[in-house]
Amino acid sequence: MSHNKGKLYVISGPSGTGKGTICAELLKDAGNEFSVSMTTRGPREGEVHGKDYYFVSREEFLENVDKGNFLEHATVFDNFYGTPKDMVMKRLDRGRNVILDIDVQGGLQVKAAMPEAILIFLLPPSLTELRQRLEGRKTEAPEIIEKRLSKALEEIKFIGEYDYYIVNDDLEKAVLEVKSIVTAEAARVPEKVRPIIRKYEQEQEKGE
Amino acid sequence: MSHNKGKLYVISGPSGTGKGTICAELLKDAGNEFSVSMTTRGPREGEVHGKDYYFVSREEFLENVDKGNFLEHATVFDNFYGTPKDMVMKRLDRGRNVILDIDVQGGLQVKAAMPEAILIFLLPPSLTELRQRLEGRKTEAPEIIEKRLSKALEEIKFIGEYDYYIVNDDLEKAVLEVKSIVTAEAARVPEKVRPIIRKYEQEQEKGE
Repeated sequence: MSHNKGKLYVISGPSGTGKGTICAELLKDAGNEFSVSMTTRGPREGEVHGKDYYFVSREEFLENVDKGNFLEHATVFDNFYGTPKDMVMKRLDRGRNVILDIDVQGGLQVKAAMPEAILIFLLPPSLTELRQRLEGRKTEAPEIIEKRLSKALEEIKFIGEYDYYIVNDDLEKAVLEVKSIVTAEAARVPEKVRPIIRKYEQEQEKGE
Repeated sequence: MSHNKGKLYVISGPSGTGKGTICAELLKDAGNEFSVSMTTRGPREGEVHGKDYYFVSREEFLENVDKGNFLEHATVFDNFYGTPKDMVMKRLDRGRNVILDIDVQGGLQVKAAMPEAILIFLLPPSLTELRQRLEGRKTEAPEIIEKRLSKALEEIKFIGEYDYYIVNDDLEKAVLEVKSIVTAEAARVPEKVRPIIRKYEQEQEKGE
């Protein structure tokens, strides 16, 4: 029996919790897709409109905000970013799961707009470990690392709003856990069970 | 971070849906345990009191019913069978998951007594397929098979009370799905999130 409609997953977690790798692993399954965001920032070398982002003007973006067309939106360095609701819905209707890699503020917006969304929180084993991972990258200035660490703690305080949490102390295990959540959620009994029961009833009626 | 308390799983499904194999697969993990039932029937060759069953008198059993000591109980061929609540609790407190292989009537009793129990329903791909599997065993009389089929349909009507359902059209896939449910449920954000947050907060306080 196929579960026809896809589900919406929000994956949040401080950088350094393996979010990128975990999302990439999920996307290897054709049943899972990213959503394409809308943004007001200009396209970078090689970025394709409609594939990497929908590149729009500030006016167009704000019009979409006014119309309530976003599941969530945010401002980053003076640029707007948002997840268009209709694009997500189209994918879900096609039976695909949609994966949103967004921060906790975005996650809470999505949950408010779509309470059936499934929110997964990725946690570092400890802040010390997170600091080491960020320092190990050697790409970020110390003050940026401090900022990330205090943002991480602020975000963790919202864990109660999330459905699942995964402590990434072993990336392979964390990937398995996220995949298990997706598999389990697909097996969840839907609100409308009549079609499931009907299928077996009809069979019996035919047999009589 | 370890999730300290275990969870209670009810696995129901008509015979012929692979329930036995699936439960056996779960029990290979030391984190999952069966509960030992209490019964009024006499021990069979090799059965050990306290391991296979708690063998008790009818009086003792009924006393336990009166005291509300069972998560569920039922009568089968004039014998009583029940799941003692305290034995389940003890296992959950020790951090073990408890697996109850019981029918839908039992499952509903468990859910009423412990709403946090996780109910999994195993379904056959179709009643026709279920009939073939039962006939293939060559151990059951045709009228018993008919009885099982109509009981199966009666049970399926309660699927809406269950949390998850798995259509066993491929045993290996079904086993993976049940295991995924157990893994996912262990990653569920608990009601009390303070201890999780506190752990990260304390680390930061120490660091300052």
